[in-house]
Amino acid sequence: MLSKNKIKLIKSLDQKKYRTEHNLFVVEGEKLCNELIHSQFVVGEKPFEIAELFYTLSWKQKHLEDLEELNVTSTEVTESELQKVSQLKTSNQVLALVKIPQKKIPRYDDDLVLVLDGVRDPGNMGTIMRTADWFGIKELICSADCVDAFNSKVVQATMGSLFRINVLYYDLEVAISKIRKHHPLKPVYGATLDGENVYNMSLPQDAILVVGNEAHGISPKSKELLTKEILIPRFGSGESLNVGIATAILCSEFKRQ
Amino acid sequence: MLSKNKIKLIKSLDQKKYRTEHNLFVVEGEKLCNELIHSQFVVGEKPFEIAELFYTLSWKQKHLEDLEELNVTSTEVTESELQKVSQLKTSNQVLALVKIPQKKIPRYDDDLVLVLDGVRDPGNMGTIMRTADWFGIKELICSADCVDAFNSKVVQATMGSLFRINVLYYDLEVAISKIRKHHPLKPVYGATLDGENVYNMSLPQDAILVVGNEAHGISPKSKELLTKEILIPRFGSGESLNVGIATAILCSEFKRQ
Repeated sequence: MLSKNKIKLIKSLDQKKYRTEHNLFVVEGEKLCNELIHSQFVVGEKPFEIAELFYTLSWKQKHLEDLEELNVTSTEVTESELQKVSQLKTSNQVLALVKIPQKKIPRYDDDLVLVLDGVRDPGNMGTIMRTADWFGIKELICSADCVDAFNSKVVQATMGSLFRINVLYYDLEVAISKIRKHHPLKPVYGATLDGENVYNMSLPQDAILVVGNEAHGISPKSKELLTKEILIPRFGSGESLNVGIATAILCSEFKRQ
Repeated sequence: MLSKNKIKLIKSLDQKKYRTEHNLFVVEGEKLCNELIHSQFVVGEKPFEIAELFYTLSWKQKHLEDLEELNVTSTEVTESELQKVSQLKTSNQVLALVKIPQKKIPRYDDDLVLVLDGVRDPGNMGTIMRTADWFGIKELICSADCVDAFNSKVVQATMGSLFRINVLYYDLEVAISKIRKHHPLKPVYGATLDGENVYNMSLPQDAILVVGNEAHGISPKSKELLTKEILIPRFGSGESLNVGIATAILCSEFKRQ
């Protein structure tokens, strides 16, 4: 049974200010909650911490073992109760309140790091995380004006990749200079409209890749941090590529080499 | 001024059955309507035909010359009238009713043709069109169970690319056999989970590329039409790539070579 206060709390987490206030975000649906629960059992990595779990009887019956092993506060609810607090069109058996992880520090690996400068659309942000996860990118650094990674639309669009990627919000200048202190020669690539044709370049695995805002691209301030501007050449008449698409093509170019 | 009947008509076009009944679809917003109007002045290509135009006074004042040259039925409306019929969160100065083009036939060019097998999400379909337009792909063949290309969410997501691409709905077996009658050696590539690593292949420009449904990939029936299965290799832990992302990476692989 869901109390009025709990309903109010869960609904409020649709807004960033309440997510920050309560230090919680919502993970909904069988697929995502399965990924979340699975992430709890991975050895070595600090997992996302589940604060509370709400599920229907039918979900519970399928996950008795998981529940025992997890040992978190949990409440059985009806489908119509779940529907009341769901941000999905059709609520989906299970909903978790998850603690927002502490601000993390960069990992300083010898690997490709992805940097987002002002990506605003939740769907784009989520898709970029999903793509990064496919390409084995472990670190995503976001400027403060990017959409919040714990926005429910972002969480949904990641398809669970959120639980496998180190997402950091940083002043980009600070973040990049921190990384380059450990890797002084790590190049900083950025996707711009007057960059060099990416298909003609030899790309290193140990690099930083910056992509910009949906409408305005990389900000002038962030452009100064780049050591190399790159471009996906246009073969047709399209005016632009979606930022998620451009990021994916560039990740593919870095990784295939 | 918008009559009650007109409001009813425009709103009804949100549903495919009414788009089919009236043979009309809606194009909204300054950017898209500019692209639409621009497409009317392109020499040689049969443009989309505008049935009727609705705009605010401020839009009209910026487009007096266009309006004179277009010579279509048009009505000045208030912003609040436009808001009433808009499918956008904030309506955007101008809305066009456009005739759905006649069923087209394949172009039979010596070029890359993109085939969608059961792509259901309007955002994915629109993004795929935008990407295809960037890569100079002129032809998109869709199976009958793909989302309707004249769905307003698709139209919005294309960012105007819809007006530059030949979109056809076909039984895929019929379409591919029609194309191969003209180009008997044209290979048919398909993105599948057990295909060959696309990064290790030499890809021709004169080819057909099939991508499948968001959840189920290419249907067993369509798989039989493929001459070569290809795969974007996974470097990390992500379970899958979004179909728009996978299509973009594959288009990039075909075009860069």
